[in-house]
Amino acid sequence: MRQLAAKAIDLCRRIALCSEEPGITTRTFLSPPMRDVYRALGGWMEEWGMRVRVDDAGNLRGLREGRSPRLIVASHLDTVPNAGAFDGVLGVVLGIALVEALGDSTGVGIEVIGFSDEEGVRFGVPFIGSRAAAGTLRAEELPEAALAAIREFGLNPEHLAEVRLASDVAAYLEIHIEQGPVLESLNLPLGIVDAIAGQSRLSVLFRGKANHAGTTPMALRRDALAAAAEWIGVVERIASAESPLVATTGSINVEPNATNVIAGLARIGLDVRHACDQRRRTAVDRIITAANDIGARRGVRVEVSQRLDQPAVELNAALRERLARAVSAAGFPVHHLSSGAGHDAMILAPVVPSAMLFVRSPGGISHHPEESVLLDDVAAALEAAVRFARDWGQAGV
Amino acid sequence: MRQLAAKAIDLCRRIALCSEEPGITTRTFLSPPMRDVYRALGGWMEEWGMRVRVDDAGNLRGLREGRSPRLIVASHLDTVPNAGAFDGVLGVVLGIALVEALGDSTGVGIEVIGFSDEEGVRFGVPFIGSRAAAGTLRAEELPEAALAAIREFGLNPEHLAEVRLASDVAAYLEIHIEQGPVLESLNLPLGIVDAIAGQSRLSVLFRGKANHAGTTPMALRRDALAAAAEWIGVVERIASAESPLVATTGSINVEPNATNVIAGLARIGLDVRHACDQRRRTAVDRIITAANDIGARRGVRVEVSQRLDQPAVELNAALRERLARAVSAAGFPVHHLSSGAGHDAMILAPVVPSAMLFVRSPGGISHHPEESVLLDDVAAALEAAVRFARDWGQAGV
Repeated sequence: MRQLAAKAIDLCRRIALCSEEPGITTRTFLSPPMRDVYRALGGWMEEWGMRVRVDDAGNLRGLREGRSPRLIVASHLDTVPNAGAFDGVLGVVLGIALVEALGDSTGVGIEVIGFSDEEGVRFGVPFIGSRAAAGTLRAEELPEAALAAIREFGLNPEHLAEVRLASDVAAYLEIHIEQGPVLESLNLPLGIVDAIAGQSRLSVLFRGKANHAGTTPMALRRDALAAAAEWIGVVERIASAESPLVATTGSINVEPNATNVIAGLARIGLDVRHACDQRRRTAVDRIITAANDIGARRGVRVEVSQRLDQPAVELNAALRERLARAVSAAGFPVHHLSSGAGHDAMILAPVVPSAMLFVRSPGGISHHPEESVLLDDVAAALEAAVRFARDWGQAGV
Repeated sequence: MRQLAAKAIDLCRRIALCSEEPGITTRTFLSPPMRDVYRALGGWMEEWGMRVRVDDAGNLRGLREGRSPRLIVASHLDTVPNAGAFDGVLGVVLGIALVEALGDSTGVGIEVIGFSDEEGVRFGVPFIGSRAAAGTLRAEELPEAALAAIREFGLNPEHLAEVRLASDVAAYLEIHIEQGPVLESLNLPLGIVDAIAGQSRLSVLFRGKANHAGTTPMALRRDALAAAAEWIGVVERIASAESPLVATTGSINVEPNATNVIAGLARIGLDVRHACDQRRRTAVDRIITAANDIGARRGVRVEVSQRLDQPAVELNAALRERLARAVSAAGFPVHHLSSGAGHDAMILAPVVPSAMLFVRSPGGISHHPEESVLLDDVAAALEAAVRFARDWGQAGV
């Protein structure tokens, strides 16, 4: 299993060379290097007797014929700009490695899918591949440029509806790097994802009064940045007290942004996530209340606009249980966690029972060239997947 | 006196039309509209029997001959971009109005100067006019472009040394709008400036770790913006407790500055001012210590670089006293304050006894088209200046 894991890692690293920019890894939806990826992975799929095709959403699909109900193992093939080698691709490569590892030992039908788009970098529309597979994407929802790109690639956007998964599919498994530090901090190779967190995005504007830094006494200021800073502290405290809630103030833009002028305006981007939608929304309410209180006390006007309120997606309880048994049978501790990042599994979960297995991310690093995996962890994931598939083959749904 | 004050205000508003950009007031060192200003003010100076010239630093100088020791009344004629009508110019116009108001009632020699550059907008070098007048500017210190501009204007930078004030000058008086809200908050028309605050400028960099906003638990973050925000709060508290200390964090730049990425880097510009250098430096030390403590606790590296450490300038005690008597004799309350902004007076104070009179700034607004003055306040300033000059004429130094 270690040998196959090493081969999978090696393949991921080779695929990282398929890039739109030499020297780094950037591979967006239907970009030219995607053809090389199809060739490399498709070749391996064919070696193991899989029927290979690229569907009209640009998804690479390899079918190992077998008994129904069929199992899907999938993740995405596109990347963010200047990406690492494992985000997405690892789950596809491990799907093929799973078929190789199973050999003839189980007669279950398995389809391995490499989704064409999850990151949404090229056209600002994420999940094109998985939404088409879930049957929830209509061509009218895509920008004209995306439709043109599909045609230029030699595919037919008129046939998007036919991309939809076959009706005998009964389970979806996605193996993905955690992209966070939780498993590493717990010294665990694997994690079973219970839910993909819901997400709120807000833009919060503090409107104070720009003024001379030298001539305005502290007591007479309406400093937008000082107000924003106080609020950033409150956001951090609310989230820290409500773990596993996370709340991030990642962006700030101040006007006039000059050292010798008191800030008149500070606009902050807020991102709040929790696997429980009610807790997330309660936290957002408290955060907004805090902003208003701080603004009122300081004579700073506060304007809040909600940009996103995306509900959490729970993964299938029976499959989670089955995956936990597989991890345990493979000899690894079972740890359940929620995913703070979005994944293709959240698109599939509403239409097919879905499960997700996280692999430890060394240093928690992702979306970065230093993104990595440990050989033993990949072998552990593969071992767990093999047991999951065998169990599936024996028991069905 | 109100009539003369109204004439002065009207003249300021007309001079505001002399601009490099139509519709707004922007008038930098030796820019073409400066010639119109020389013409307008020079004409008024000549009406009152003053000898008018433009010196080789571009300063407009009007001399009313009279007894030594001579009194200088001056301020600057250049503006910031999109300026108001009174910053600087008011002090020059009131100098001429003072000569008009005095008439023949006192035989003291008065030179009214409109400095060519205080703001430093055109060449990034402030105080070109007053430094030349103080004899502390050598041509070698100016950028080649500034020297070329002086030549193009028809002046000779080789003669900068001759710009220096005559040796019989014994007092410098600058009337200037406060550019801050203190006098207004105290309901006072005038203020006597005791000192011009010293100033520290620092750049403080918080170097944390950029990471995924969804997958990084609060406890495992090294959030550069959260660290910076905590520190901004401390800066505000230190300054508020040490009034009249002012400390401003007016600029902030965060990387990568994306809502869904924890900030890896936050750079803040800090401006600290106090009329007492020791208190200012002690405050800066405390502020730096606080940054280091916050960084150490959060696993965020802190890098501090000092950009400026400009000492405070005390104005002449005897002249301040004389100015206070004049304000009081004119029937207005005496209020002493320090100036948080820099002024030409800080350049002259080391070489000639100097005093400065502030005029209330409605709304504390300056460096803005809405900058204004009240007619009664301008009349009060003129009345005080007349009494100051008469007193000077009677008593000498």
